[in-house]
Amino acid sequence: MLIQPGELLAKIDNPADLRKLPLDKLYQVCEELRQYIIDNVSIYGGHFGASLGVTELSVAMHYVYNTPYDRIVWDVGHQAYNHKILTGRRDQFHTNRQYGGLSGFPKRDESEYDTFGVGHSSTSISAALGMAIASKEKGDDRQHIAVIGDGSMTAGMAFEAMNHAGASDANILIILNDNRMAIDPNQGALKDYLTDITTSPFYNKIKDEVWNMLGKVKKIGPHAQQAVSAAENALKSALLEQSNLFEALGLRYFGPVDGHDINHLVHVMEDLKKIPGPKILHAVTVKGKGYALAEKDQTKWHAPGKFDKLTGEIKKKVFTTPQAPKYQTVFGETILEMARENEKIMGITPAMPSGCSLNIMMKEMPDRAIDVGIAEQHAVTFAAGLAAEGMIPFCNIYSSFMQRAYDQVVHDVCIQNLPVIFCLDRAGFAGADGATHHGAYDIPFMRCIPNLVVAAPMNEAELRHMMHTAVKHRTSPFSIRYPRGQGVMPEWKVPMEEIQVGKGRKIKDGEDVAVLTFGHIGNYVVQLSDRFQAEGINPAHYDMRFVKPIDEEMLHEVFTKFDKVVTIEDGAIMGGFGSAILEWMMDNGFTNKQIVRLGIPDTIIEQGEQLELQKEAGFDHDGILEAILKLSSNVKSKSKVLVKSK
Amino acid sequence: MLIQPGELLAKIDNPADLRKLPLDKLYQVCEELRQYIIDNVSIYGGHFGASLGVTELSVAMHYVYNTPYDRIVWDVGHQAYNHKILTGRRDQFHTNRQYGGLSGFPKRDESEYDTFGVGHSSTSISAALGMAIASKEKGDDRQHIAVIGDGSMTAGMAFEAMNHAGASDANILIILNDNRMAIDPNQGALKDYLTDITTSPFYNKIKDEVWNMLGKVKKIGPHAQQAVSAAENALKSALLEQSNLFEALGLRYFGPVDGHDINHLVHVMEDLKKIPGPKILHAVTVKGKGYALAEKDQTKWHAPGKFDKLTGEIKKKVFTTPQAPKYQTVFGETILEMARENEKIMGITPAMPSGCSLNIMMKEMPDRAIDVGIAEQHAVTFAAGLAAEGMIPFCNIYSSFMQRAYDQVVHDVCIQNLPVIFCLDRAGFAGADGATHHGAYDIPFMRCIPNLVVAAPMNEAELRHMMHTAVKHRTSPFSIRYPRGQGVMPEWKVPMEEIQVGKGRKIKDGEDVAVLTFGHIGNYVVQLSDRFQAEGINPAHYDMRFVKPIDEEMLHEVFTKFDKVVTIEDGAIMGGFGSAILEWMMDNGFTNKQIVRLGIPDTIIEQGEQLELQKEAGFDHDGILEAILKLSSNVKSKSKVLVKSK
Repeated sequence: MLIQPGELLAKIDNPADLRKLPLDKLYQVCEELRQYIIDNVSIYGGHFGASLGVTELSVAMHYVYNTPYDRIVWDVGHQAYNHKILTGRRDQFHTNRQYGGLSGFPKRDESEYDTFGVGHSSTSISAALGMAIASKEKGDDRQHIAVIGDGSMTAGMAFEAMNHAGASDANILIILNDNRMAIDPNQGALKDYLTDITTSPFYNKIKDEVWNMLGKVKKIGPHAQQAVSAAENALKSALLEQSNLFEALGLRYFGPVDGHDINHLVHVMEDLKKIPGPKILHAVTVKGKGYALAEKDQTKWHAPGKFDKLTGEIKKKVFTTPQAPKYQTVFGETILEMARENEKIMGITPAMPSGCSLNIMMKEMPDRAIDVGIAEQHAVTFAAGLAAEGMIPFCNIYSSFMQRAYDQVVHDVCIQNLPVIFCLDRAGFAGADGATHHGAYDIPFMRCIPNLVVAAPMNEAELRHMMHTAVKHRTSPFSIRYPRGQGVMPEWKVPMEEIQVGKGRKIKDGEDVAVLTFGHIGNYVVQLSDRFQAEGINPAHYDMRFVKPIDEEMLHEVFTKFDKVVTIEDGAIMGGFGSAILEWMMDNGFTNKQIVRLGIPDTIIEQGEQLELQKEAGFDHDGILEAILKLSSNVKSKSKVLVKSK
Repeated sequence: MLIQPGELLAKIDNPADLRKLPLDKLYQVCEELRQYIIDNVSIYGGHFGASLGVTELSVAMHYVYNTPYDRIVWDVGHQAYNHKILTGRRDQFHTNRQYGGLSGFPKRDESEYDTFGVGHSSTSISAALGMAIASKEKGDDRQHIAVIGDGSMTAGMAFEAMNHAGASDANILIILNDNRMAIDPNQGALKDYLTDITTSPFYNKIKDEVWNMLGKVKKIGPHAQQAVSAAENALKSALLEQSNLFEALGLRYFGPVDGHDINHLVHVMEDLKKIPGPKILHAVTVKGKGYALAEKDQTKWHAPGKFDKLTGEIKKKVFTTPQAPKYQTVFGETILEMARENEKIMGITPAMPSGCSLNIMMKEMPDRAIDVGIAEQHAVTFAAGLAAEGMIPFCNIYSSFMQRAYDQVVHDVCIQNLPVIFCLDRAGFAGADGATHHGAYDIPFMRCIPNLVVAAPMNEAELRHMMHTAVKHRTSPFSIRYPRGQGVMPEWKVPMEEIQVGKGRKIKDGEDVAVLTFGHIGNYVVQLSDRFQAEGINPAHYDMRFVKPIDEEMLHEVFTKFDKVVTIEDGAIMGGFGSAILEWMMDNGFTNKQIVRLGIPDTIIEQGEQLELQKEAGFDHDGILEAILKLSSNVKSKSKVLVKSK
């Protein structure tokens, strides 16, 4: 379906076109942008509320600054839809987040206006500061702007960057897009602080003073510099010394301003352009602005899926048979079920309560299910502190975000052998979020750490058993990885069973080839049974369950019976599960074996449906069948990994 | 040599003994502690300045708080010597940091007073907050104290923890040990801020007001709570709203106090014990306090090695022949040499300028060699920002600290394929710093990331060639790992050569067994040549140089010529270099081969000399010889990894 942009938007092919418009037309541009985003997302899906919240900021920045020469760095980036539409990608925007289409996030390969690729939070100040210092070294007079939400500000990385920026003379503007939200409501002391300074009449008075001073700057012209200093001094003496958190960090603080007043934003940015050095503009915005339902329930409308834009009805697939639940739901219901029986169990999430379904437990046990904000590092060591005192913490972190807490897993949990339980959600291909969100690397990066149990359930019942087993297993840390989305068991609420740590399951006996799987991907092998029969092959199938400790007894059986083995994992094959099988084989003196490892190849794979990406990587149903057939038929051929390598 | 403790210290076997002393004896206890540390470190080596700076804080905490019931969590932990001596480890203290001896850091296995193991910075607030919330859940009335330096405060993790703590009602006291130093002088805006609030008469006035109020608290007794609120309100209104950075984060701020006034510290802590909720005490201390030379040159005396305590002469080994340089020196001199020729080259270190020798470049080019403070995450993304603008950043981070920036390596550098050059210092066993500092995991965690070149030089010339090659190679990020300490080439300043990325070096031809090495450890094989001859064996030796891209041509040669291969790496064998060789072998259809992988086994290895640890891990000279002999002699035996596994 072709979506028609509004009349002004239809003529904006790049920001230079935008800059030709008179100021009084920008309001209409904003309206048309919002309409275009609503039209697109309601039909094609995608992130929603965040972009609606920064429409005016996006327009003002591209209007005032000389992009792409001036550098805009978006934090997280799911709010960059206005930016994408304004920078030459309007007509491709309907391909957003689809396989082969536009990325849902800024991406350097996609546009020269996307100065820095992103997807995870809190990187923008560091990146923009690097650019600003590069400009200084090169003698360029660029402007550098990082646009960061208050949620992203809670991650330590943003603080590290401000600590550096504030002590530098780099020409950087941080725009704090303050909407009080991450995906869920923002957490922590900083949020309260921002509320305080936004509502304090004292701060508003100072703000006015500063703006009056800045008003004079424009008239003074060449003496602008001095006047700015005067304004600053007024601010400083009024506030005593560094009385604002950002001023304390050496950033000149401006605001708060209404982030939806396009005229005011343009004027403010024009003033700020003239002020050198590190500075912060505090803009207050409303997530979902302009779409009433989204303003009202901001978490639901963060990324609602397709919907009817008039009624606001979110389109859900209708099924006539009972469906398997999401793994996320299984996690959320199961931890609550266990926590009711065991008062030591606690749940921790870094800002993903609705994403990982810990919100189910938070509702009933707000003291024992804790959202620590976007703060993965803290989440893990906080969990270690709980475990040190005998509590049983489940720390649920998306696989790709666990990369943020890797040192804490090593240093605070595993070296000390503290029994923290990690649930690695979104392990494997994440889908439409793309390369930054794929949980591709956790098997290699977790299994190399001593003391850690590394497990993956093949289905919902197994996830329940593993969570239950992890609670019983108090002698080491325990990690459980599972994918985004649906499992395979509509009747999933089976009684929990303790399983033996390090023991796999034989799914079926077979001949010629043994297929060893780790996690949910094992279901693909089960689903292939008819096609195996049709092809006249009968591979054995083992669900290994644990990559560490690995089931040595089972591997003895496998390598005694079979010369040909296929390993399958929804993760990087370089150093992953298949490599663990190879290592065991060699360490135990089995030679003359052929092992084909299927998994994510050593290349960056972009967004798409999980199945599309698995196909690209060679481990969708067809890819698996092909690998097994090839190995079965060709007894003497040399095995080859079927995936692309660079 | 037996070191005699002073007369009071001799009788303190645990903090309960300390608490029996009258307050007026504590000054002497502090003097004796300092003397004991000076005596020990001057003879046996170890960290020095940091512990001397917290003698009074350590004594005051153990005097006021009911340890071990109350929990003290040390940040970093190299300053915990007073604590170790006071908590039952006085007489073992001479084994500090030696193989089999006491750890140089707090360690849960070592003492119930060591509530949380540590070695890396900025974990203490998270851990103590976890403990405090566990206490709340369990209904315990414990006190929880995190002792953290101002250097550690610059790492984002500390900020994440404060953001959580300040919004909680957890009973936690953060003691900010403000000495303006990390190992090198502290960096960033926060440092300037702390200086400002320490020297501002306004803050001191407020401080006095608060203490006056708190003085009344003690008299009021049951109404203490109310009075505290009153004091708070006084503070708040005087400072307007959250005018202090820590107050902005919801922490009640007390201080600054003189961290060397033992009597005052005891009184302050006694007061603070009565104040519930999250709070911070800002104590100003002097690193190296009580040893004049250490106070004067704090970086040099951070961990000076053995020295003459009277003259202050640091004992250096005397050599009659020219010695090979440290790899660190080679890095530091080489980057400067290149930077003089290429103005795009920049150097970045997160707080380790003297440790990694970037200080050599900082001296000559302060704008182009940047210490960003303890902020590994920011360091990497900042480097990515520089690279995005065409600069050539060398980001030097210790291997174990790179764990802190793992997501940034994946998300900001490698997914975007930005040509940042990483130098991973302290790769492999770090030595006396122990388990937290070993660079054990970087080969598996780096080589699974697409786009990244992963290299390790065997000697100084190779390091120079690789650094030079990395500058030429602008098509992808590039990582170079090398160990702590000396190389093998006294004449190391050879001209730099560009080498082909992904090409190894054949060191020598041979028979029966091929030895494949990665990095400096390859020298051990060279050094074994006489013993090979004596044993009548002649293994071939290949220095692979790159684990990614791997030299396929060379591996074809190896596996065509040899059925038996030994791989050696100073890193985790689980998923490491040896596994890469295994993967390649299998993917390329070579079966019926035996590969023995030597490296760090899947277990936590503590401190000791690098050679002692390599012996424990089975890849010192003897271990390597033994593995080769075993494989050579026993043609038909099945290979076994020679290292322990759990």
